Amino acid sequence: MALDHGLVGVESEPYERSWTARDTMLYALGVGCGTGELEFATEKGQRVLPTFAVLAAQAPGRRLGDFDPAMLVHAEQAFELYGELPPAGRVRTTTKVTGIHDKGSGALVTTRATAVDPETGEPVVSSRSAVFIRGEGGFGGERGPRGTWEPPDRAPDHKVTYATREDQALVYRLSGDHNPLHSDPEFAARAGFPRPILHGLCTYGVTGRALLHAVAGSDPARFRAMSGRFTSPVFPGDALTVSIWVDGSDVLFRTAKDDGTVVIDRGRAVISPRPAP
Amino acid sequence: MALDHGLVGVESEPYERSWTARDTMLYALGVGCGTGELEFATEKGQRVLPTFAVLAAQAPGRRLGDFDPAMLVHAEQAFELYGELPPAGRVRTTTKVTGIHDKGSGALVTTRATAVDPETGEPVVSSRSAVFIRGEGGFGGERGPRGTWEPPDRAPDHKVTYATREDQALVYRLSGDHNPLHSDPEFAARAGFPRPILHGLCTYGVTGRALLHAVAGSDPARFRAMSGRFTSPVFPGDALTVSIWVDGSDVLFRTAKDDGTVVIDRGRAVISPRPAP
Repeated sequence: MALDHGLVGVESEPYERSWTARDTMLYALGVGCGTGELEFATEKGQRVLPTFAVLAAQAPGRRLGDFDPAMLVHAEQAFELYGELPPAGRVRTTTKVTGIHDKGSGALVTTRATAVDPETGEPVVSSRSAVFIRGEGGFGGERGPRGTWEPPDRAPDHKVTYATREDQALVYRLSGDHNPLHSDPEFAARAGFPRPILHGLCTYGVTGRALLHAVAGSDPARFRAMSGRFTSPVFPGDALTVSIWVDGSDVLFRTAKDDGTVVIDRGRAVISPRPAP
Repeated sequence: MALDHGLVGVESEPYERSWTARDTMLYALGVGCGTGELEFATEKGQRVLPTFAVLAAQAPGRRLGDFDPAMLVHAEQAFELYGELPPAGRVRTTTKVTGIHDKGSGALVTTRATAVDPETGEPVVSSRSAVFIRGEGGFGGERGPRGTWEPPDRAPDHKVTYATREDQALVYRLSGDHNPLHSDPEFAARAGFPRPILHGLCTYGVTGRALLHAVAGSDPARFRAMSGRFTSPVFPGDALTVSIWVDGSDVLFRTAKDDGTVVIDRGRAVISPRPAP
């Protein structure tokens, strides 16, 4: 086996990272904030998009084994926030591979990251991600849990459409993910795409903006958690429509392209129905 | 007098600044590079837009005296490059106020900045800028030189039109100029504008891209110098048309909006007609 199955359950060394107000403004622009969302895009009364939590809790990836990195795709992403993120901040993060599941055609590797305040040790963000590695399945392992996800039998309570721009990935990538799949036409062609694709986490951030404004009254302090599964590539320039069902603080959502292709499926969020008193 | 006329001729302390590949990519995006100009917007074979020279040679402004900063506008900007700028670099810069001219309704303060390689002392960029300060004229000083500028009696050799985007200033400002005149509608209204205006140096950078691609074969190594006078505000979203006349390495240009309003006048550039052997 090329995947290192012995990694499961081993906690990483702690990793400290900090971010600046410029980083969080650039992130906001990268996921499509513009002149209509100045409190996220400029430092005047600056607030931070909840989905920045995923980046805040990122640590250098551990080598999962010996396989072609082109076979790896981001499959799922979840995060939980323990409070509103500051425009500039610092966290100490540990990660742990929590499972390697056998999906037949490939392996699903799940990782958890826990980011704490380096001064107090208090939790700031907990994040879970899964990557799918084609060709690394069939090792006789468990398939892993499959949760249920079923939207209520009614039209969505909110539908929000945001355009993405042709150069969206070029701005987004300056937040740290420089994978040439998102910028280099030749590299994208070798990976089988007609042109570079948008970062999954950019689509995730655009989706998070829709949830924030439609459900959380644009108040990041009400945004507690979000998860979803990446199901299809997005090209910069595609418009994204987020369909949202709200039941108290439990929110279900799904993000699709204009042609109906679902790009984030099985979406869940936890959003406080009211501002904190 | 609120302006400190004693500043003229006094050299500043040297100031060191460095920039990263991320800074130069972000600058490129800020002045409108997109998927058609990947060598400036991404790190694959990255090259640097010549107009980044102005930012590379910036040093913290010295206090010019005691006046309302809202009365100050960027009037002129020139730079000279001694070689192609690297994607990441470091310079040591000294500045000097070279003149305070009496224009009647205001004062024109000219400054020169000289940026050198901190290791070798070799010049990297020389930059000249002028700011106009309303209400600070009438002190009985010289009006200052007025050069001639006359385009040849023929249609422009090149006309290049670039759109700017509604959020152009929000991206550009992350390159360092956080003046709220370019982002905050309330601040812009107090300054008498219907909405935030684009940074003059963003218009300058868009103009530099036009010169680079139309005259320099997209080769920054051929781009030696550029100067121009800011004559009218630009709003994010305006399209900019650069009219260019070329005579050997001497280039004249003028940038205008769709309605014909000239926004950079008396433009000159020096661009080598051929690539270096």
